[in-house]
Amino acid sequence: MKASIYREEHFNSAHRLHNPKWSDKKNKTVFGKCNNPNFHGHNYKLLLKLTGNIDENTGYVYDAKKLSKLIKSAIINKLDHKNLNLDVVEFKHLNPTAENIACVIWNILRKEINEKYQLKITLYETERNFVEYPST
Amino acid sequence: MKASIYREEHFNSAHRLHNPKWSDKKNKTVFGKCNNPNFHGHNYKLLLKLTGNIDENTGYVYDAKKLSKLIKSAIINKLDHKNLNLDVVEFKHLNPTAENIACVIWNILRKEINEKYQLKITLYETERNFVEYPST
Amino acid sequence: MKASIYREEHFNSAHRLHNPKWSDKKNKTVFGKCNNPNFHGHNYKLLLKLTGNIDENTGYVYDAKKLSKLIKSAIINKLDHKNLNLDVVEFKHLNPTAENIACVIWNILRKEINEKYQLKITLYETERNFVEYPST
Amino acid sequence: MKASIYREEHFNSAHRLHNPKWSDKKNKTVFGKCNNPNFHGHNYKLLLKLTGNIDENTGYVYDAKKLSKLIKSAIINKLDHKNLNLDVVEFKHLNPTAENIACVIWNILRKEINEKYQLKITLYETERNFVEYPST
Amino acid sequence: MKASIYREEHFNSAHRLHNPKWSDKKNKTVFGKCNNPNFHGHNYKLLLKLTGNIDENTGYVYDAKKLSKLIKSAIINKLDHKNLNLDVVEFKHLNPTAENIACVIWNILRKEINEKYQLKITLYETERNFVEYPST
Amino acid sequence: MKASIYREEHFNSAHRLHNPKWSDKKNKTVFGKCNNPNFHGHNYKLLLKLTGNIDENTGYVYDAKKLSKLIKSAIINKLDHKNLNLDVVEFKHLNPTAENIACVIWNILRKEINEKYQLKITLYETERNFVEYPST
Repeated sequence: MKASIYREEHFNSAHRLHNPKWSDKKNKTVFGKCNNPNFHGHNYKLLLKLTGNIDENTGYVYDAKKLSKLIKSAIINKLDHKNLNLDVVEFKHLNPTAENIACVIWNILRKEINEKYQLKITLYETERNFVEYPST
Repeated sequence: MKASIYREEHFNSAHRLHNPKWSDKKNKTVFGKCNNPNFHGHNYKLLLKLTGNIDENTGYVYDAKKLSKLIKSAIINKLDHKNLNLDVVEFKHLNPTAENIACVIWNILRKEINEKYQLKITLYETERNFVEYPST
Repeated sequence: MKASIYREEHFNSAHRLHNPKWSDKKNKTVFGKCNNPNFHGHNYKLLLKLTGNIDENTGYVYDAKKLSKLIKSAIINKLDHKNLNLDVVEFKHLNPTAENIACVIWNILRKEINEKYQLKITLYETERNFVEYPST
Repeated sequence: MKASIYREEHFNSAHRLHNPKWSDKKNKTVFGKCNNPNFHGHNYKLLLKLTGNIDENTGYVYDAKKLSKLIKSAIINKLDHKNLNLDVVEFKHLNPTAENIACVIWNILRKEINEKYQLKITLYETERNFVEYPST
Repeated sequence: MKASIYREEHFNSAHRLHNPKWSDKKNKTVFGKCNNPNFHGHNYKLLLKLTGNIDENTGYVYDAKKLSKLIKSAIINKLDHKNLNLDVVEFKHLNPTAENIACVIWNILRKEINEKYQLKITLYETERNFVEYPST
Repeated sequence: MKASIYREEHFNSAHRLHNPKWSDKKNKTVFGKCNNPNFHGHNYKLLLKLTGNIDENTGYVYDAKKLSKLIKSAIINKLDHKNLNLDVVEFKHLNPTAENIACVIWNILRKEINEKYQLKITLYETERNFVEYPST
């Protein structure tokens, strides 16, 4: 009786795509307007998928309210209304692409949630660009 | 030449989360405002995924209009504008969480659709809370 | 320098459409499955439009965070995860149609918000059925 | 034979809410996390409403492709992937709230589009917070 | 006690923008790829806004189920899965732009619905292009 | 460090479902109003999922801007504002169902994108009907 539950949360952040090992010219060529030195920003939509057995007493895989609180305390408080490059330690030496943000979020939540549950992150940078980590 | 088709339908129902083996206090603690004795309700969005071979004569995996009719006759008529706890026999002794509703729907549709097709249910209780059964 | 701001909030409630002055048969004829005696329910989406001058010091017509808190304390706490017919005093003698719910919400908020601001409510019962009060 | 046409465009920007006449403490109290010195950001959704007569030869009020090009050249190029506070001259001395951004956009487009058409801007900062300028 | 109710319906049609008084070259210049001689198509989303008094006995401005049936019998049956240019008499000598389709729909519904109700049509050709008739 | 990225694009086309080996009567029975001889149309929404390793230098699985350009040049230019049956060679002898359109798109993109990336297509014919190819 395995099922998956999904919980959606949101955060609004500034970021800049940049590789410090590269010249300004190469950064501009590769990242285009995403390399703007003064940053730009997004409304990120985060979807956490959690897979496990349906508990017979509750009928839940996991309490959605608890999951929402956990995502808010571990992720949203850390990333919302922040500059990902300047305010978030994980991106001090890591380019804050959607792919890397999804990895960082997965690694944080993985430590907070019992190993018996499988986890997957979908992160929407815009309605038309989004990523999944890990891949299926 | 396997593909999956999806069909979305909707139903609007009242429900209450409650475990009759537990005290009122424990029910309140676990289910919070979802335990309100007078019920609350949702616009449920149901997505049926059906996987099979693309038929050479029709170009269909399955006729979407037939699938819609089948979901309406087997599921929507049963659950729409109903009180899941009081009006639907499957939830007489089963807590109508999104997880359990998705299981009930899958079990009903599984009997109505040829075994050569794989089925999966996604059930949205709200835009931000949804479940998948069975899990992948 | 007049502008309008909108804030969206949500509540999930059970209700039943019924006119106690009418026979059961007439209620069934007029309200159809919305008259189910055991109730059904919806995810209501509430949009508050507030019109006023843009304040020169803040650049706000009204602080959206304050507006959200106000809607939550005055409306969402009252209606969310409730049975509108049984749990909400305003609907003791008033049929909880989308039109009437929108009026009730407008009347409550009108008392909480300074008269210099114009207010309008849009209430979505489903994605495809919604109402506006007052009309323009 | 008057009708209105709407065209939706998008831009992704960083910003910070701040009033330089106020102390840091007052800014923090009024603007909360929107005052973060390192900025945060949004996916802004812009809706332009243009009202006029339906042309008998084209059946258009205004060519939607031309309108899209105009919004892109006059607005999107100016605001997309920018820091509104640092990169956009109009916000050098104006707080980039949604209300003020909508005004700035309206003023720019008003000069580009023949006076016989009425214009209105709807600007979404998030799905749940948006503004309209001018107000109706 | 005036309120407005909205009902959303859908139709999927082929069309071509073309002015028979113009040369092929001028048609191509003005309408671009929308002038493709073999047609293209859209999922049209239709929103009917109806304004009137809230009835004291029902709590309705107008029964949404009746409104849906009326739109389906008068509009959807006429336009859905049709070629607007070839199959719909109203567009025999009228270019099927979104503006003109909205007018045609309004004129048909105006005859079907009591004059005491005000009507407005919003017609979405795509998510990003839509029109309102009559204009406010 | 495998992840998946998704890119959404759109095209608006006319089509007709028809099997030339069948009688008109059988075509009408099987395909219903989708068999209309003068065609109908849709706003198709295309989602490309691409799975691969996250590049250490860019933080990308694949540059979303490049992916968007590739989809536009290989797919959107070919299908947008076209009649799939009459204007697109791949459907000269293939019924343009959503399933078959998804296959055709996958086969074209498979040749354009390095084999080290896995690809999947989701194609929405309407919000409520969509297909995935290949199936998982």
